[in-house]
Amino acid sequence: MAPGPSVPAAEIDRRRHCIQAALQQKGIDGLFIVQRVDLYYFSGTAQSGFLYMPAEGDPLLFVRRYAPRARRESPIRQLFPIDSVKAVPGLIREALGCLPGVVGFELDVMPVREFRFFRALFPAAEHVDAAPLILNCRMLKSAWEIARIEETADVSARTFRYMQSVISTGMTEIAFAAAFEAYARQRGHGGGLRVRDYRTEGYPWHVLSGPSGGMVGLLDSPASGEGTSAAFPCGAGPRPLQAHEPIMVDFGSVCNGYHMDETRMFAIRSMPEPAYSASRAAIAIHDRVLDRVRPGVRMAELFDCATAAAEACGEAQNFLGPPGHKVNFIGHGVGLELVEPPFIARGHSQRLQPGMTIALEPKIVYKDQFSAGIESVFQVTVSGARLISKTPVDIFVC
Amino acid sequence: MAPGPSVPAAEIDRRRHCIQAALQQKGIDGLFIVQRVDLYYFSGTAQSGFLYMPAEGDPLLFVRRYAPRARRESPIRQLFPIDSVKAVPGLIREALGCLPGVVGFELDVMPVREFRFFRALFPAAEHVDAAPLILNCRMLKSAWEIARIEETADVSARTFRYMQSVISTGMTEIAFAAAFEAYARQRGHGGGLRVRDYRTEGYPWHVLSGPSGGMVGLLDSPASGEGTSAAFPCGAGPRPLQAHEPIMVDFGSVCNGYHMDETRMFAIRSMPEPAYSASRAAIAIHDRVLDRVRPGVRMAELFDCATAAAEACGEAQNFLGPPGHKVNFIGHGVGLELVEPPFIARGHSQRLQPGMTIALEPKIVYKDQFSAGIESVFQVTVSGARLISKTPVDIFVC
Repeated sequence: MAPGPSVPAAEIDRRRHCIQAALQQKGIDGLFIVQRVDLYYFSGTAQSGFLYMPAEGDPLLFVRRYAPRARRESPIRQLFPIDSVKAVPGLIREALGCLPGVVGFELDVMPVREFRFFRALFPAAEHVDAAPLILNCRMLKSAWEIARIEETADVSARTFRYMQSVISTGMTEIAFAAAFEAYARQRGHGGGLRVRDYRTEGYPWHVLSGPSGGMVGLLDSPASGEGTSAAFPCGAGPRPLQAHEPIMVDFGSVCNGYHMDETRMFAIRSMPEPAYSASRAAIAIHDRVLDRVRPGVRMAELFDCATAAAEACGEAQNFLGPPGHKVNFIGHGVGLELVEPPFIARGHSQRLQPGMTIALEPKIVYKDQFSAGIESVFQVTVSGARLISKTPVDIFVC
Repeated sequence: MAPGPSVPAAEIDRRRHCIQAALQQKGIDGLFIVQRVDLYYFSGTAQSGFLYMPAEGDPLLFVRRYAPRARRESPIRQLFPIDSVKAVPGLIREALGCLPGVVGFELDVMPVREFRFFRALFPAAEHVDAAPLILNCRMLKSAWEIARIEETADVSARTFRYMQSVISTGMTEIAFAAAFEAYARQRGHGGGLRVRDYRTEGYPWHVLSGPSGGMVGLLDSPASGEGTSAAFPCGAGPRPLQAHEPIMVDFGSVCNGYHMDETRMFAIRSMPEPAYSASRAAIAIHDRVLDRVRPGVRMAELFDCATAAAEACGEAQNFLGPPGHKVNFIGHGVGLELVEPPFIARGHSQRLQPGMTIALEPKIVYKDQFSAGIESVFQVTVSGARLISKTPVDIFVC
């Protein structure tokens, strides 16, 4: 495993132009970027610090720890080592000639206490939420970014092959997950999945065997599984895998900051009915939705296409969760965060655009019995969908 | 691995009385508890939802997903399944007779956008930061909680024994970490470490070998290591372990929601100077601080005791980081989060109290060369310190 490539200067320039155009359009004079993923996206470094992005001109990178590494990693040339954030207004005034009148923040993630601290540094300014502008830029991936996601897809596909070689009866869900995660880690998977919401926990061990797959729970996902305790009540649990039962593996992985998210159904010896039919139905729905992908198509249309396909397969009742516990989406963007815009969701009027990278995950849950499903990541191209996932779209009976 | 015990009703009652006394003292009528760890602490369930804790009377548990599981896990009897948070003010008025005049929130973690939503639900109220009250309750552990941390300490100690059996030359830092994490997971370690700050990422793979240990970085920790990429620039990296070099393993683990945090020095074949002396010095500092622990002693006094001991060992220059990059603490609380109050930090006037559980981690960093250090978790008793850690306080030459 070689260390990943650093973010090219041209890539950082492209991102800067994207966000500066949005800031100008919204009349925001400057934007503080403090969340680690956003900081890495716009600067190329994830060292401790933050970025000030003016609507015009060069961004300023403020680094608490560790400036020499940030300097090596980031193409941004205006880099200021700082001990205290209180020095920042003075440095901005010095570099840009004035303080901003309207300042943007990532108000979807910035805690109130920190926001009040920043606000006090710019008492005369208006403070607005600029998180949607950031997420809009991040939503459309460049060729360089898609190449990164492809690398993660390679590791994910190799890991799914490895799963087929080690899955066995008596192994617990947790032991199976621990084994394939260790394999993936040695091939570049970084271990820690990133999610934006402070109450959401991303993890790579979503193994739900037999009735574990029928457990509804806290996740905004069709099934949550048992988990390891009431304190962490989702994902793999202590249940031993058995032959002749459906086993769902939803494996999120990350290399060089870019995520993949794939789900496949496994069975040892054979997959019984009705799980086999439900698993085939999920693949049919998946393929039907992919066929419909074109730039300009609305998310709601893809969602409705999926529900119609589930109906046609006779799986409408348990599609996206058992009655009373359904989720309202079949896909989500994937990139520097495991879950990010866009969302293929009921009623969403947003349209597909080339450069979107989306995890498509039609799932079917028979309550207290099992989950069935599939998940692939695809890229929206100028003419349709291209699978980034390299794992065969199939059911693995081992 | 058996599923963990659920939180006893007496424990939930004790916690409720602790926070209600604090609310009454501060004149706060009620507190919204939304962060997952705080919710689990006060309710016994981590299902999706939140808790409303009035200053007097029974708390109300609102559950989005999944009410039947929350009902099984939580001793709280006033449980309301909800689809929308907008229903909450009406339910509070119905249950308690009136709406609160002063409402507390966890403003250290709650994002601005979410806070504004909640605030609009209670437009006539005053909205205050109640996070410190919550963390103060959580800081003092009951016998039940200490028993949970002891269970995690067992898994951690077994994992450190396992590390000694598998460490070998040529294995990368990542591969070594992946191996011992897989071992720990099968014995109850949950995999995902919890930290409170949205920009901090807890992870169990902090393996820093030779010069990796001399890499200063983004962490508020004496050394950060290389990590897997610029996107995740800390912890284990691709460097192969070598014989005759110092290897620091800082392993955070979690069982049933309760964390442990232990560091030991390893070497293959032999540990060279000056790393051996620095590792012995860290142990000497650790023992000196433990000897000084008594209820009533101030944190600053322990910190000063450590720096004096480092001076006496001839390690003052590199203690807590190389010159110019030192951190200002030698210990932090451990519990439902990996890092929580109290902090044994420079100048802190807080006093030790029985029931505190603290990770003590004196570390010494020779820049670009290596890290040396040790970390144990101890409990403050009525008469001194009792080690919860069961891993021998030693250097492991394998």
